[in-house]
Amino acid sequence: MVEKYSIRTDLALEQKERFESDQVEVQGVVLTEEVDEEREIKVTTVKIETENGAKVMKKPVGTYITMEAPNMAVPDEDYHREISAELKKFLAGIMKGDQEDYSVLVVGLGNRKVTPDALGPYVVDNLNITRHIVKEYGKYAMGEEHVRLVSAIVPGVMGQTGMETVEIIRGIVNETNPDLIIAIDALAARSSKRLNRTIQIADTGINPGSGVGNHRNAITEETVGVPVLAIGVPTVVDAATIVNDTMENFLAALETSESLKGVGVVMQGYSAAEKYELVKELISPHLNGLFVTPKDIDETVKRISYTISEALNMLFSGSDSQDSASGTALRN
Amino acid sequence: MVEKYSIRTDLALEQKERFESDQVEVQGVVLTEEVDEEREIKVTTVKIETENGAKVMKKPVGTYITMEAPNMAVPDEDYHREISAELKKFLAGIMKGDQEDYSVLVVGLGNRKVTPDALGPYVVDNLNITRHIVKEYGKYAMGEEHVRLVSAIVPGVMGQTGMETVEIIRGIVNETNPDLIIAIDALAARSSKRLNRTIQIADTGINPGSGVGNHRNAITEETVGVPVLAIGVPTVVDAATIVNDTMENFLAALETSESLKGVGVVMQGYSAAEKYELVKELISPHLNGLFVTPKDIDETVKRISYTISEALNMLFSGSDSQDSASGTALRN
Amino acid sequence: MVEKYSIRTDLALEQKERFESDQVEVQGVVLTEEVDEEREIKVTTVKIETENGAKVMKKPVGTYITMEAPNMAVPDEDYHREISAELKKFLAGIMKGDQEDYSVLVVGLGNRKVTPDALGPYVVDNLNITRHIVKEYGKYAMGEEHVRLVSAIVPGVMGQTGMETVEIIRGIVNETNPDLIIAIDALAARSSKRLNRTIQIADTGINPGSGVGNHRNAITEETVGVPVLAIGVPTVVDAATIVNDTMENFLAALETSESLKGVGVVMQGYSAAEKYELVKELISPHLNGLFVTPKDIDETVKRISYTISEALNMLFSGSDSQDSASGTALRN
Amino acid sequence: MVEKYSIRTDLALEQKERFESDQVEVQGVVLTEEVDEEREIKVTTVKIETENGAKVMKKPVGTYITMEAPNMAVPDEDYHREISAELKKFLAGIMKGDQEDYSVLVVGLGNRKVTPDALGPYVVDNLNITRHIVKEYGKYAMGEEHVRLVSAIVPGVMGQTGMETVEIIRGIVNETNPDLIIAIDALAARSSKRLNRTIQIADTGINPGSGVGNHRNAITEETVGVPVLAIGVPTVVDAATIVNDTMENFLAALETSESLKGVGVVMQGYSAAEKYELVKELISPHLNGLFVTPKDIDETVKRISYTISEALNMLFSGSDSQDSASGTALRN
Repeated sequence: MVEKYSIRTDLALEQKERFESDQVEVQGVVLTEEVDEEREIKVTTVKIETENGAKVMKKPVGTYITMEAPNMAVPDEDYHREISAELKKFLAGIMKGDQEDYSVLVVGLGNRKVTPDALGPYVVDNLNITRHIVKEYGKYAMGEEHVRLVSAIVPGVMGQTGMETVEIIRGIVNETNPDLIIAIDALAARSSKRLNRTIQIADTGINPGSGVGNHRNAITEETVGVPVLAIGVPTVVDAATIVNDTMENFLAALETSESLKGVGVVMQGYSAAEKYELVKELISPHLNGLFVTPKDIDETVKRISYTISEALNMLFSGSDSQDSASGTALRN
Repeated sequence: MVEKYSIRTDLALEQKERFESDQVEVQGVVLTEEVDEEREIKVTTVKIETENGAKVMKKPVGTYITMEAPNMAVPDEDYHREISAELKKFLAGIMKGDQEDYSVLVVGLGNRKVTPDALGPYVVDNLNITRHIVKEYGKYAMGEEHVRLVSAIVPGVMGQTGMETVEIIRGIVNETNPDLIIAIDALAARSSKRLNRTIQIADTGINPGSGVGNHRNAITEETVGVPVLAIGVPTVVDAATIVNDTMENFLAALETSESLKGVGVVMQGYSAAEKYELVKELISPHLNGLFVTPKDIDETVKRISYTISEALNMLFSGSDSQDSASGTALRN
Repeated sequence: MVEKYSIRTDLALEQKERFESDQVEVQGVVLTEEVDEEREIKVTTVKIETENGAKVMKKPVGTYITMEAPNMAVPDEDYHREISAELKKFLAGIMKGDQEDYSVLVVGLGNRKVTPDALGPYVVDNLNITRHIVKEYGKYAMGEEHVRLVSAIVPGVMGQTGMETVEIIRGIVNETNPDLIIAIDALAARSSKRLNRTIQIADTGINPGSGVGNHRNAITEETVGVPVLAIGVPTVVDAATIVNDTMENFLAALETSESLKGVGVVMQGYSAAEKYELVKELISPHLNGLFVTPKDIDETVKRISYTISEALNMLFSGSDSQDSASGTALRN
Repeated sequence: MVEKYSIRTDLALEQKERFESDQVEVQGVVLTEEVDEEREIKVTTVKIETENGAKVMKKPVGTYITMEAPNMAVPDEDYHREISAELKKFLAGIMKGDQEDYSVLVVGLGNRKVTPDALGPYVVDNLNITRHIVKEYGKYAMGEEHVRLVSAIVPGVMGQTGMETVEIIRGIVNETNPDLIIAIDALAARSSKRLNRTIQIADTGINPGSGVGNHRNAITEETVGVPVLAIGVPTVVDAATIVNDTMENFLAALETSESLKGVGVVMQGYSAAEKYELVKELISPHLNGLFVTPKDIDETVKRISYTISEALNMLFSGSDSQDSASGTALRN
């Protein structure tokens, strides 16, 4: 198969869609959908089950849950609480550890100083950190029955630290031995329609090419020694992707357009790969290193980071009720 | 003439180039260029002299000086000092006030929380503010001969204040009566090549449509009562602009391409306006409200804001030497 | 009466207490207390009714409501919601305007970059700003029945702007004509016990000497032309105050101590004024410009700012239910 | 000897002075002074040479260099460059590594969100980070002859991470194997006169009780495995210290005062320890967890952090000239 789709997306869902649009069936990849119509939340689970599936999807074997909530970009706090509760439910399903002293290290990936990349750091800002308290005073100090030992780090990006993020995380894991890492990251979507409306949970960790900052090395169970649950929200689209999409629309139009029949005829002589090459040539090299993001990204990132930190605070306190859980939101 | 180019640029230089590329001569607009080859700084002055020129250029009558310095995006502090000195020279040429108690209000436009829009607020952060000191202790308190009364405000954007920026500025001007406003703003360029490499100085103030945040009302001598000097740096490109540009390249390629001759023939039957319509149809409506910016925008905006604040600190202290002037950089 | 206590406090309650501890009755000042034992909130109302009372109290004629909630410094979000609701109730009692287009300008006083002084700016960060939306789309755009036009400004401090804050506010008021100003400010308490546990609401505006940043000019109905409601939380104590308090304890101990009887005898020969002089001499001049604040001030200021912004969002949306009101918390 | 002075200071110099004021000679501690009168910089070197000296001084065996520059709090950038150059000189004297691939990990200790504790994080913000560039492109990529591999981390404080800072650092050291750690921290001084005017360099690392945030565990060669150079600036005084100092002045006055002769006689019957107990009783327990800091701490911390980052950038680039070194200041 032609190496056609180098277009970048961090969403397994979008990767899958590409094949569907071409009516290609991918073996070893199973997709299930569930729609909560009342709350307008659509949950898609992509299971990559075989190495073949992984190769085609360019993502590791594992489970990718995507929650799409069109109103997530809207400032309705009640709605955000429902998303927090839903997100907590999925995380609880994946996080198995029920032992007393289960400990979690939350990693806020990304660059705090570039707004769409600040999601991870912002989530950590509102987490209820407990490890040092439980270590010092015992779990009863927290006044809750099921207390996890929660620690967190905002490692910064390579331009700020001179280090690969995986080096920092692996070092901290070796010293503090958490049972699980939950890594929060801003992702790059393929479609601007998904920006700030989608949360992806993956049990495969963080893999190269994810996020605004493009981590070069994986942060996975293999590289850091403990399972890594990744929570990502697409906050940007690569500039090249947006241009490419329009070009593809254009080429598609050429092929069907009445008024452009002559062009259509010509273009039909080109294979998908050739057309892609044609487009690539025309895309400015100046688009490298550029990303696309909405103008109200400051408000959106703040709001969604809060939705995720609420979900995590509920998850860690073992609270089922949103109310008491949200009570922990500002504990730090 | 067809309303062909609604593509957005805040740079008078780019507006002018568009007409040149079409070999249209615009009456009432004079362009002069000067190149400092050693320092690789190109200075272009666009003078819009008549109302006709203003109408065609979609910018008010006035002078627009553009400094292009390809290395401005490079972290060489010595080079940045030279740009500061050059910028100071141009500002001094425009700012006539030589009386003893000349007072300037610097306005840092934009949203501090959206990185590419934070240029104005960052410049104000490093300014040497003197008005309150001179008012209280006299100008000798500053230990310099020619001291301006410098005040500054970061008004925020409409989503944060609920007010038009011009309302805030006009109110402050009425109370404090500055002789001049210098407004700093992040601009939208047409070409990603100009991002963070260009400084535009305009004696016409801030006009609607400028910047990331898209101020709706002008901040000009007419609207606030005192002359407004605008200093702008393009830090973003509209997403729609980047797509449009690529499409135009594509259409141009179609018309000349050997291999696509068939298409070329067809497209030649279309006028520029028709081609533009064709492109517009294909551009996703989702691009509205999206902007394009580089991944290292945090470092770039920090660096350029410092270059501008240095220029202003030199300008206000009446210092000719870069050294002593840069001595004021951190005074606040 | 000897000008005995020049010790600084921004709390009317503390000023009143000083006289009570000396068993001095102050004419023209009425104090009432109300205790909500269940929620451990104590509300004290100090009414300064006459010019004589104002002179003695060194505060203008007006009403000062103080809510003391010892648990306010504790991170229990449910409790904070109750305080928000209580605060909203008091604000609603003072804010009379019930007309359709009632407009409020919220002013976040203080320096965002000095943690205990950042209360005002932080409150504004989480406000639901509506003026621009109502102006553009009408009040029905807000989806609520009683919508106020809310605008807000973070003016910065004099060292950053070169302007008196009152100049900035007066200018903005003249342009935008709000019916009411609500000014939020960090205050200086006399007692470290009150830090971050007390909210004072005053219908007299902001008067000189208030807050960390020590505004020199009043922001009151007289100086800006519209009523000014001030909401303040003591986040610092003057360094000199803390030293003085300890010295007074010491002197008191000297006078009563068995083991120090000899000293006691001597000190009894001193009047209160003479003792104060003695103390003042011993207090280091280096204490000028120093303030005292808790180490966890970052968390506390963040939490209380949120409690106040919630109260204001409830107040402005006309919501009685905490739940739907808190739904607006992240609207901006 | 009575455990008299539990008063907290992170400055070896101040610890030494205490004994001098009591005319106690401390064996195993050598103090040398050097004054640069022209530039008003006083450099004091305290060498703790024996375990006895360490015990008395309550600081580990090692060298403590203190630069006192009264004008450091003044915003004169030229002067700050001289301090940077001086500081660089001392650091170069201590840092021996001259091999090609010498690598340094800079640790910015403290809480970015509490202004006087943000010194460390701010220094890291302006460092020229090179490790990742040299690793990827070789040292010639830097365009300088002697390039160190510089990496940096801002670990946060325990309330934010749930981890001891030493755990984080040790983990990162194990992964990245730097030759040296340079840890930057805000310190607590004994005297408010020293605030923001003093830089201490210690080759003993960071020891418990240092800084605003009171690190509980040492960060030293013993605990992290590589030498740790500590650079500290006192930005706060403990509230209890300031009160205690005034009380001591008072007691001293009592003993000598003519007018208070009677008291003096009585107090002479008390030993130093008894007097300390008396004072301690009178100091409010509410002072625990409170610190004292100047109102302009935002400007001061910003300025001094810049002075230190300049020194480090000079040190790492091997530059002797201030100019070219300062050229690196904004490289990141």
